[in-house]
Amino acid sequence: MTTRGIYLAGPDVFFPNAIDVLAAKKALCARYGYLGLPPLDVELSATGKPNAGSIFARNLALMRRADLIIANLTPFRGVSADPGTVFELGWFHGAGKLVYGYSNVAAPFEMRIAAAFAPIADGPAERKLANDGMAIEGFGLGDNLMIDESLRPLGGLVRPADAQDRPIDDLKLFEECLKRLDESTQPARL
Amino acid sequence: MTTRGIYLAGPDVFFPNAIDVLAAKKALCARYGYLGLPPLDVELSATGKPNAGSIFARNLALMRRADLIIANLTPFRGVSADPGTVFELGWFHGAGKLVYGYSNVAAPFEMRIAAAFAPIADGPAERKLANDGMAIEGFGLGDNLMIDESLRPLGGLVRPADAQDRPIDDLKLFEECLKRLDESTQPARL
Repeated sequence: MTTRGIYLAGPDVFFPNAIDVLAAKKALCARYGYLGLPPLDVELSATGKPNAGSIFARNLALMRRADLIIANLTPFRGVSADPGTVFELGWFHGAGKLVYGYSNVAAPFEMRIAAAFAPIADGPAERKLANDGMAIEGFGLGDNLMIDESLRPLGGLVRPADAQDRPIDDLKLFEECLKRLDESTQPARL
Repeated sequence: MTTRGIYLAGPDVFFPNAIDVLAAKKALCARYGYLGLPPLDVELSATGKPNAGSIFARNLALMRRADLIIANLTPFRGVSADPGTVFELGWFHGAGKLVYGYSNVAAPFEMRIAAAFAPIADGPAERKLANDGMAIEGFGLGDNLMIDESLRPLGGLVRPADAQDRPIDDLKLFEECLKRLDESTQPARL
């Protein structure tokens, strides 16, 4: 039996401490008996001039090899998660693989939108409108419903249980995903 | 031979004119011989109180039925595309279906980040850093490289050829995707 591979998706590759964070995630994976697969060859990015096509091809190869994804869906440069990470989460779901995700920010999506796009107005059909005149999803979720609901069969988007935000590179909730995976009976995806 | 179905992904469902825009997209699809499948049952959203789980299940059923996606990837409430749309784009790619996408905004991703997260600084390994201290992708693409590169086999992210931004609900580039689809030999995805 081969060790199950976990694709370590997230904006972590953009962090100043990317190499350390991804090494720590790999070490945590190993502690739980999994093989952590970072989405970018960190050595490549540090030493060469990769192009977008080669990074995509390498990431895709890792995604195909991985059995599941644990995505860092902490809001990144705006009200939502990093879009590359969201693409990868959708890819795993579409490919029929297991999906886990966490966010180190506690506030629901609509509260973050309301703060960034105030004032909020009432629209038709009981919808709330942001100051861009467009509707706000109001489901109390951590991000767009496609993201949150894709994670529901495995326990939903993991957010801070104590409602206290954590730094984007904090690994407590990443480890919480590993624990859930460890305890789960790995049900078939919906 | 059944008519090929196109999943009409985008933040269009949040527009004040969502019903009209999605109807116009469906009509354009029909003109080119395809069946347009909007990502949300617009009647449902206008008359009832859908919950996140039911919307997800209905969207997923449409995505499974669709043969391909045309995603409106125009930046939405920030520097990147709507995250629900990005999830769906990734889902189609992971499911091995055809992916098309357009953005009505011409400026490259890194220029939008530089404008929103100034000042920009030089980092290690010739990377540029935003004012959040985190690296910026600098490939001249329309959004995160996972998004753009997923679209490359079918011609890349469609952006305004005249470098003039268009409104987020403008359909010229949506129709451009239909034309490319019509003319393509529908190559296998990479």
